[in-house]
Amino acid sequence: MPTQPSQRAQKLMASPIRKFLPLVRQAEQRGIKVFKLNVGDPDLAPPPQFLAAIKRYHQPNLGYAPSPGIAEHTAAWVKYYAKFGVKLKPENIVPTVGGAEAIFLAMLSAADAGEEIIVFEPLYTSYKGFAVMANIKLVPITLKAENNFALPGAEEIEKKVNKKTRAIVIINPNNPTGSALSEKEIQAVIKVAKKHNLFIISDETYREIIFSGRPDCLLKYPAAKDNVILVDSVSKRFSCPGARIGCVASYNKDLMRAILKLAMIRLSAPTLEQYGTIPLLENSGPYTKKITAEYRRRRDAILAGLKQIPGVKTQKPRGAFYLIARLPVKSSEKFIKWLLEKFSYRGKTLLLTPTAEFYVTPGQGKNEVRIAYVLNCAALKEAMEVLKVALEKYNK
Amino acid sequence: MPTQPSQRAQKLMASPIRKFLPLVRQAEQRGIKVFKLNVGDPDLAPPPQFLAAIKRYHQPNLGYAPSPGIAEHTAAWVKYYAKFGVKLKPENIVPTVGGAEAIFLAMLSAADAGEEIIVFEPLYTSYKGFAVMANIKLVPITLKAENNFALPGAEEIEKKVNKKTRAIVIINPNNPTGSALSEKEIQAVIKVAKKHNLFIISDETYREIIFSGRPDCLLKYPAAKDNVILVDSVSKRFSCPGARIGCVASYNKDLMRAILKLAMIRLSAPTLEQYGTIPLLENSGPYTKKITAEYRRRRDAILAGLKQIPGVKTQKPRGAFYLIARLPVKSSEKFIKWLLEKFSYRGKTLLLTPTAEFYVTPGQGKNEVRIAYVLNCAALKEAMEVLKVALEKYNK
Repeated sequence: MPTQPSQRAQKLMASPIRKFLPLVRQAEQRGIKVFKLNVGDPDLAPPPQFLAAIKRYHQPNLGYAPSPGIAEHTAAWVKYYAKFGVKLKPENIVPTVGGAEAIFLAMLSAADAGEEIIVFEPLYTSYKGFAVMANIKLVPITLKAENNFALPGAEEIEKKVNKKTRAIVIINPNNPTGSALSEKEIQAVIKVAKKHNLFIISDETYREIIFSGRPDCLLKYPAAKDNVILVDSVSKRFSCPGARIGCVASYNKDLMRAILKLAMIRLSAPTLEQYGTIPLLENSGPYTKKITAEYRRRRDAILAGLKQIPGVKTQKPRGAFYLIARLPVKSSEKFIKWLLEKFSYRGKTLLLTPTAEFYVTPGQGKNEVRIAYVLNCAALKEAMEVLKVALEKYNK
Repeated sequence: MPTQPSQRAQKLMASPIRKFLPLVRQAEQRGIKVFKLNVGDPDLAPPPQFLAAIKRYHQPNLGYAPSPGIAEHTAAWVKYYAKFGVKLKPENIVPTVGGAEAIFLAMLSAADAGEEIIVFEPLYTSYKGFAVMANIKLVPITLKAENNFALPGAEEIEKKVNKKTRAIVIINPNNPTGSALSEKEIQAVIKVAKKHNLFIISDETYREIIFSGRPDCLLKYPAAKDNVILVDSVSKRFSCPGARIGCVASYNKDLMRAILKLAMIRLSAPTLEQYGTIPLLENSGPYTKKITAEYRRRRDAILAGLKQIPGVKTQKPRGAFYLIARLPVKSSEKFIKWLLEKFSYRGKTLLLTPTAEFYVTPGQGKNEVRIAYVLNCAALKEAMEVLKVALEKYNK
């Protein structure tokens, strides 16, 4: 028998967002158009300044970037955060390989093997994967769709705290729910974190993509100054996930020292993209306003479409570009498989993401899907019509 | 007291290769030229095809690359390996964020927390960091400079194997020693791996940079087909570490499934650089031959310079662009600090890397330095003269 991989690698699930791709390919080979609403991979073009800046790169070498970031790049993050009322110094920031690496470094620096991090489920799946990689236990608090996925009060959160708890994760605006935190919810998290000396890993990848209220940043809360580990990314706000640029930021000096030591092990984030994102970070407003208006139109289009489908329940997202819909099916996973293998309407079908994998607790979210509205309004409208016909047929 | 980072983050050492940078900056501010022989960051320009390919990128979007790699990029790796007699399919390869991530994914997929991986010390420092991140214990076998850092026989290696052992790491050609493995050494490792069903993590980042004998690839050994996890990188052979492109490759299907699941968690390697490295991988020979000839000239220049310095002991490197020199000092770390803070000769000094951190065993390598010959022959010659004067003065 061949040498076997580690248990941690074996026990990981294949990405729920990506595992249907072979079925998609087969459907496409049969000539069927598949509306892909599964991945948070924006269809919008990034600001042209990005590629322009990369094309201006004229240094003879392409060396490692410094682990604390190329100075001009880190300075651009400083300038970017200043617009949200957050004053940072370069040493408060370490650029990362996308938001994904920012999450991983935050988790690694917050908790040791066997320790616990509190999360609110459903949550972005990579947290689960990184927890397996780092031997950290995620302790979930299940949010309710009926309650618009609102966080519970401090007392409820506190019930999950024990001696092994090291951090609480919040994702704001949220992937996959599209919710955004109220002041009251934020204060509850801060209260618990301060009382029990926990880190707050604040994932603000979708900061500007918010449809009511203003973009927020947890580093603005002085009470939580030493607790917050900010996780950020250029991927969504500048429609460039392929750039693999994000950052970790914190006022906690010991934490940043730890982050930098971890970052040195993997050397650096990509050099060209650190340059490419400088003009984007320095003047983010015009672009992020434009795309947020577009995502708002899409949200409204998709909600209007879902309203026409009997038995579908959803919430009105306040931010990001996702929503969770409860479908009148037993297993959204089986339904999606059926959509790709057996169904088409006018030569079209669609790909959604089953929500079960966004939960830590087994058995949750079985009849839910996450919809990423990364297609234009016309396509979304059509996709919702296809979904309506599909559910009618599936439930006949 | 502010919330404290995890133990694993705190117990990491700052990179020995990078920690002297503040002292370098201060020396430079005093007007002193510092010959930087510390980082494996080539001074050579990458092939012009790299930036040219990136500048040709004209897709409107910059989406995530697929986790198994952009098809054309993975195909370029397949073509590249074929030139070394290694037949791979795309599913045997997952592109990574530099060789660093390849190392980490290999270690994570080979060993669970608390398990062991055998390494030969001195070794590339990032292995130590990743082991801390993944809670894997590195079990070192100390190689001797007097013996040209040759590996021991199978029996010696086997003494370190126990029930928790999951893999053996080889780096060939080697960073930091510059040694290259003989057929006999390779067979000894394979013998132990097969007998005890261990993985061999074969780090071949410097494959073509070899001065005697031919570039080798462990995937060519049929006996080890299911044991080998190949770790690779474009950084050194194409002088582009800032591109952050590497790969993991293996014939072991279960292993590659595990690697792919791990890779999905962090989504993808950078999109532009996957395109940029296609022409490099497809026609690697002309460039790698040219730079290998240059590194050979440098090796000879640096060895000639070191020969002139009393009390310095070194070996003739067979590959990569490093060598380890034993200096007539008690602590190479203190000597390097002195070089930067107190010394200059004709307005010049130099930066080397203390070797202690390349060892897992505490106390090893205290009077050794690693020299990366990433400057041209004239500069190396001058740097060795500066080193000679420095050692005379230091030991007076």
